[in-house]
Amino acid sequence: MPARHIVAIGGSDAGISAALRIRELDPSTEVTVVVADNYPNFSICGIPYYVSGEVTHWSHLAHRTADDLAATGMRVLTDTRATRINVAEHTLDVLDAAGEPVELSYDALVVGTGAVSARPPIDGLTGPDALGPEDGVHLLHSMGDTFAVMDSLQQRDPKTAVIIGAGYIGLEMAEGLTTRGIAVTQIEALPEVLPTVDRELGALVHDELQRHGVQVLTHTTVSAVTPTDTGALTVTAHRNGETLEKTVDFVLVVVGVRPDVELAADAGAELGVKGAIAVDEAMRTTLPDVFAAGDCVHTHHRLLGLTWLPLGTTAHKQGRVAGENALGGDARFAGSLGTQVVKVFNLVAARTGLRDHEVHAANRGWTPVTTTATPDDHKAYYPGATPIHIRITGDQHTGRLLGAQLVGHRSAEVSKRVDTYAAALFHDMTVEGFSDLDLSYTPPLGSPWDATQMATQSWSRQLRVSAVG
Amino acid sequence: MPARHIVAIGGSDAGISAALRIRELDPSTEVTVVVADNYPNFSICGIPYYVSGEVTHWSHLAHRTADDLAATGMRVLTDTRATRINVAEHTLDVLDAAGEPVELSYDALVVGTGAVSARPPIDGLTGPDALGPEDGVHLLHSMGDTFAVMDSLQQRDPKTAVIIGAGYIGLEMAEGLTTRGIAVTQIEALPEVLPTVDRELGALVHDELQRHGVQVLTHTTVSAVTPTDTGALTVTAHRNGETLEKTVDFVLVVVGVRPDVELAADAGAELGVKGAIAVDEAMRTTLPDVFAAGDCVHTHHRLLGLTWLPLGTTAHKQGRVAGENALGGDARFAGSLGTQVVKVFNLVAARTGLRDHEVHAANRGWTPVTTTATPDDHKAYYPGATPIHIRITGDQHTGRLLGAQLVGHRSAEVSKRVDTYAAALFHDMTVEGFSDLDLSYTPPLGSPWDATQMATQSWSRQLRVSAVG
Repeated sequence: MPARHIVAIGGSDAGISAALRIRELDPSTEVTVVVADNYPNFSICGIPYYVSGEVTHWSHLAHRTADDLAATGMRVLTDTRATRINVAEHTLDVLDAAGEPVELSYDALVVGTGAVSARPPIDGLTGPDALGPEDGVHLLHSMGDTFAVMDSLQQRDPKTAVIIGAGYIGLEMAEGLTTRGIAVTQIEALPEVLPTVDRELGALVHDELQRHGVQVLTHTTVSAVTPTDTGALTVTAHRNGETLEKTVDFVLVVVGVRPDVELAADAGAELGVKGAIAVDEAMRTTLPDVFAAGDCVHTHHRLLGLTWLPLGTTAHKQGRVAGENALGGDARFAGSLGTQVVKVFNLVAARTGLRDHEVHAANRGWTPVTTTATPDDHKAYYPGATPIHIRITGDQHTGRLLGAQLVGHRSAEVSKRVDTYAAALFHDMTVEGFSDLDLSYTPPLGSPWDATQMATQSWSRQLRVSAVG
Repeated sequence: MPARHIVAIGGSDAGISAALRIRELDPSTEVTVVVADNYPNFSICGIPYYVSGEVTHWSHLAHRTADDLAATGMRVLTDTRATRINVAEHTLDVLDAAGEPVELSYDALVVGTGAVSARPPIDGLTGPDALGPEDGVHLLHSMGDTFAVMDSLQQRDPKTAVIIGAGYIGLEMAEGLTTRGIAVTQIEALPEVLPTVDRELGALVHDELQRHGVQVLTHTTVSAVTPTDTGALTVTAHRNGETLEKTVDFVLVVVGVRPDVELAADAGAELGVKGAIAVDEAMRTTLPDVFAAGDCVHTHHRLLGLTWLPLGTTAHKQGRVAGENALGGDARFAGSLGTQVVKVFNLVAARTGLRDHEVHAANRGWTPVTTTATPDDHKAYYPGATPIHIRITGDQHTGRLLGAQLVGHRSAEVSKRVDTYAAALFHDMTVEGFSDLDLSYTPPLGSPWDATQMATQSWSRQLRVSAVG
């Protein structure tokens, strides 16, 4: 009997995680990973730090080298594009590195096609004559995009840049380009930067950007990017009925991504939320023996139900589950809580669970109450203490913890503090019950009630006062 | 009807937490806190940082000032020593600040008498002629001890010191005295410093001490401290049959504490593990309307059952429960996991849950397996990544997570990473299930699988390999 053969499409988190899990659990199964470019298992999240110069060579962004991957026994086909899934035949058509069609047969298939950058409806950015890297206008999602950005920075030597979008990558790139000595203007259509947290916390990040010389324009919509005669770029935008023009050397467009589902959809896979591939918690698509994982699939969220929430952490978890189940296992993706963190200069912003409007959207009968506290990260008497701004969301009636958002100094261990909340949310704890957790304490690093617990106690207190009042 | 009156004995974590909780929940109840010295609500854990000079004035060690406490409406009687609990009469005899006997009546009483320093059976440290502060020989547990140490440092201006004991406070004081420019020799009877973690992790702390100039003598038992003619102190110790002598200017004895139970025991309270006051999970003693909390009571441990494990975090939790129940509430202490952390120079060491020998002692049918992993705190490509040494203990048969120990650089967010394990232990997670937690990730601060999850995955892998092998 020939060895079982599993094919994974996609060389990013989901595909590689699936392949690694298969090789770990059953070295007798053959695994082939089909990778469209030449950069399997690269850390997309690390791109801003290569652009900034903090990562000194692009090859360092690889989670594992080609040799590391080969050592696991998986076969990685780079520069190979999957073109068609033949579901009945259990074969995958690909164009190999030479552009020749090849057919791969599989016993099980894992689709990890990921996401592609969204192109906003801005004059100059859409249509056949859309501006591109050769004009100094860039998207940024793949290693290919990254090399184009680096070429542009090298050749154009920009002194000024506009970044359209102030989400995670937009903020990281604002820091990265500033670190390179470029004067950055950051434009965000929504009322505040980092719209994944509440406005009062986004405002702290806004201040931090300005403190480092970034010009921040919120509530501002870009309508056009136009090349000038000298090769510069004029960005036209609107804010409160006013028209603004900014002429710069470099434009970065980072307004989000959409799931890349074409291959699976063409094969007949059902699509789910936001057009992402529908999967169950075992990461099975509606096609026989076809699994999918990562940014291309909709996301099981423990509080929201089905949503679409592309995150590298989730892709790793889902890929691992898909790999185990492609082998015939019985793993389940336990669900996302949307736990996220970003560093922007010396601030760290993190969140897990739900914010007020998401609690309403979840439609599970919860009435959200959100309060703010600003406990110090450690005892004030020990040098270096800084306040952490923490917003706690809980259900008014049951007291259930529903979400937490934190912004604090880089030294304040914010990213691991959000993890304590994430663990509590995973187990459906109440806000009050959070104080029962036996957390660590030493004066240079915490308090007898950790800052996370001071914030939940403050929520309880404010609820009690408002109930009495 | 006169207002209900609750008396708390002890101005440290447990007593003050109880009083604060009572005032928070029911401002109509009168609360009196009886404090033996003049330092209510001081942070004992902060003492090493006052001795080191990092905390510039002793008053900064107060969690709350006298005014803060008064503002809550509680009455604090300082320099007032509780001498007798009259259980039947519901009164407490005290000697007031002037030394006069006073009787306080109570509806409910909270005993938070804490712990006192242990005096090891060493020649020169026991008996009526025991050496003391005037000789340059110090214990260190109270603010009184602290002032004596500071006087001694001022007057003797020691160039050299021996610290007997290498637990938390011993290690923090080794750093503190080194910071003051004193050459420290640290002597520990057990095979390694920081005996609350496994030896291979203690060895990392040992190295860190030596890196900062501390002479470390482990497996070394002190038999005598003798004053010399010139006012110095000769410490005589034994190691592998060899006798060592060390003459220094200053000796600090920090070998642990024992529960201070005399007052409650005299009143007839049942004593429990290690002679600490027996309490149930509501923090009730066996005496009617008498509660107790903190270092003076035995500890409900979620994995071990009853033990004695004095920690400030636990005292805060227990005091809060005792306060609520003294009001007639129905709170329960959820139990300790022994979560602890200490900073020693640039290293942080933390633990939660059980180590192998404690798993055996728990006698719950678990077979401990402990493995070590050394994942980086964040992606290696981003500057400043350092390995965290993590030991995971789990049950071989059920896969249940039983404990975690971590040692890493101060920048590695070790103290909040141990909290994620503590939250997992609180909810009886398995080692394998720990990977389901949705933890945060950004390259400067973590990895797609957090270091904590890489360590649990390594445990699973090693168990699988050994099962096959």
